Amino acid sequence: MEPSIEPIIGVIGGSAPTKEEMAAAKAVGRALAKAGAVLICGGRGGVMEAACRGAKSAQGLTIGILPGIDRSEANPYVDIPIVTGIGEARNAIITRTAQAVIAIGGSYGTLSEIAFALSFGTPVVGLGTWEVKREGHPLAPIVHAGTPEEAVKRALTLARGR
Amino acid sequence: MEPSIEPIIGVIGGSAPTKEEMAAAKAVGRALAKAGAVLICGGRGGVMEAACRGAKSAQGLTIGILPGIDRSEANPYVDIPIVTGIGEARNAIITRTAQAVIAIGGSYGTLSEIAFALSFGTPVVGLGTWEVKREGHPLAPIVHAGTPEEAVKRALTLARGR
Amino acid sequence: MEPSIEPIIGVIGGSAPTKEEMAAAKAVGRALAKAGAVLICGGRGGVMEAACRGAKSAQGLTIGILPGIDRSEANPYVDIPIVTGIGEARNAIITRTAQAVIAIGGSYGTLSEIAFALSFGTPVVGLGTWEVKREGHPLAPIVHAGTPEEAVKRALTLARGR
Amino acid sequence: MEPSIEPIIGVIGGSAPTKEEMAAAKAVGRALAKAGAVLICGGRGGVMEAACRGAKSAQGLTIGILPGIDRSEANPYVDIPIVTGIGEARNAIITRTAQAVIAIGGSYGTLSEIAFALSFGTPVVGLGTWEVKREGHPLAPIVHAGTPEEAVKRALTLARGR
Repeated sequence: MEPSIEPIIGVIGGSAPTKEEMAAAKAVGRALAKAGAVLICGGRGGVMEAACRGAKSAQGLTIGILPGIDRSEANPYVDIPIVTGIGEARNAIITRTAQAVIAIGGSYGTLSEIAFALSFGTPVVGLGTWEVKREGHPLAPIVHAGTPEEAVKRALTLARGR
Repeated sequence: MEPSIEPIIGVIGGSAPTKEEMAAAKAVGRALAKAGAVLICGGRGGVMEAACRGAKSAQGLTIGILPGIDRSEANPYVDIPIVTGIGEARNAIITRTAQAVIAIGGSYGTLSEIAFALSFGTPVVGLGTWEVKREGHPLAPIVHAGTPEEAVKRALTLARGR
Repeated sequence: MEPSIEPIIGVIGGSAPTKEEMAAAKAVGRALAKAGAVLICGGRGGVMEAACRGAKSAQGLTIGILPGIDRSEANPYVDIPIVTGIGEARNAIITRTAQAVIAIGGSYGTLSEIAFALSFGTPVVGLGTWEVKREGHPLAPIVHAGTPEEAVKRALTLARGR
Repeated sequence: MEPSIEPIIGVIGGSAPTKEEMAAAKAVGRALAKAGAVLICGGRGGVMEAACRGAKSAQGLTIGILPGIDRSEANPYVDIPIVTGIGEARNAIITRTAQAVIAIGGSYGTLSEIAFALSFGTPVVGLGTWEVKREGHPLAPIVHAGTPEEAVKRALTLARGR
């Protein structure tokens, strides 16, 4: 019996990214696919679509955890649209399923995903994303990467064994 | 650009099936894989495991929508474990994502999935499963099949165009 | 310290009831409030609104577990609108929170709530609602009542000690 | 017809607070109850319990949105335990239902609630809690308060009209 497909790596980020964030997301998706990883994301536009597009350019498998009730909500590069109907609560599913997540830019939705990942013990790699801190609380273990390639490398290493 | 993988067909049923239900589930999984369909289920034991096992015997792709917080909860024939952490509320996700579902035996959890599928307009094919009726309410459009092969054929036809 | 308010009794049923079901729901809501019970429901129209209206006519407390993202979705007789944003998956919350549920008529959404309640061990009292059966499966323990007063009496008895 | 009970104010914070955070949470709960607000929280220990205890000391009404499947999980000062069974995804429900939230200390779970509240447009008042920022992103509109009384006053003002 074949083992389950893995690792599954999450790419999280906003629906209104800059050009640089779009390019980074596409490069991350492509590098994940080349490494044999499955990409999981929120399934919609912006960073999610760019990452899926990058993954498909290298024949990767892409999963979109959609908030709404209609599969047509998925971007055209999602292979497997999971139609949750539970709205933004689906952010908990992305971050529980992924064995590591790469956060690219993003707004408050992405921040909720970073927080859930940290809460669940899912490793977080950041590319130009949120910084969070609280006096008296241990530093959040977000690994900040300088390039898409470094982000993917770090995520794959952190995902191992999980 | 390649279209998304499809159709995605759900197999729903209990974790404590009879031998006959296990055999039916395995045959359903195998027939779905041979037809090129992706199998989605609750990812655990019993009917779910038998269906996944059948699908893998014909190189199908299997998705498990898990209720708990740990991917190890998946049966060994699940390729893609989706770790929801939302308990039985995940039954709504299985039945929204599937383009048709095949119900095999089952207890109250399966009944909730049949009800959700009917509520969402997802076609339901039954193999020795629940019968539901209410005076003054239109008959529930459950398609009762006599064999696994008939169930798969009906599900694939009903899923078309959704 | 005061004990938590209880019992919490669920009223489930459709958004397009008959006149008789509306009257039954209102009588159920009123009788629950008179008995000091808190009413929990899906918070919307039809049976849910009639039950809340009945409860408020006797100064009861009403909770609406809303599927959408806006509190304005609640009927005007809901005291405490819980805005879930998780769609029909909220049916699992109503049936876990209630210490017993009374089902009045209803369509497939109500059937999913009956199934969840049975699955979670929450007692179900039916007033002209779904009948469910499966060959080889123990009979579902739905208590069928003939009048709103009998339904409330049975629900309160079943809820005791839970 | 009486209007729905309001405002509903959320108190979010961790299960392992400092003594100072406990005292602040209790004072916040008490001040909310005195102002006639309903308190909503995650229903468990630490900041949640202290806030509920404070509210009950002034005859307030307290709602606990529990992650698990058992009402006994609620702290003893919760009047209405809502048993979600959806784990940490319930953080989305607290922050959608509250008309404003007060964050006291907290770890990553609290950070996810702050992020959800910001995402949903629910006003956030912070008492010694997370600071979040991202280069190129507008400043998160967290209102930092210096005392429990100030936090409650700000939350009540921000909640008005929502």
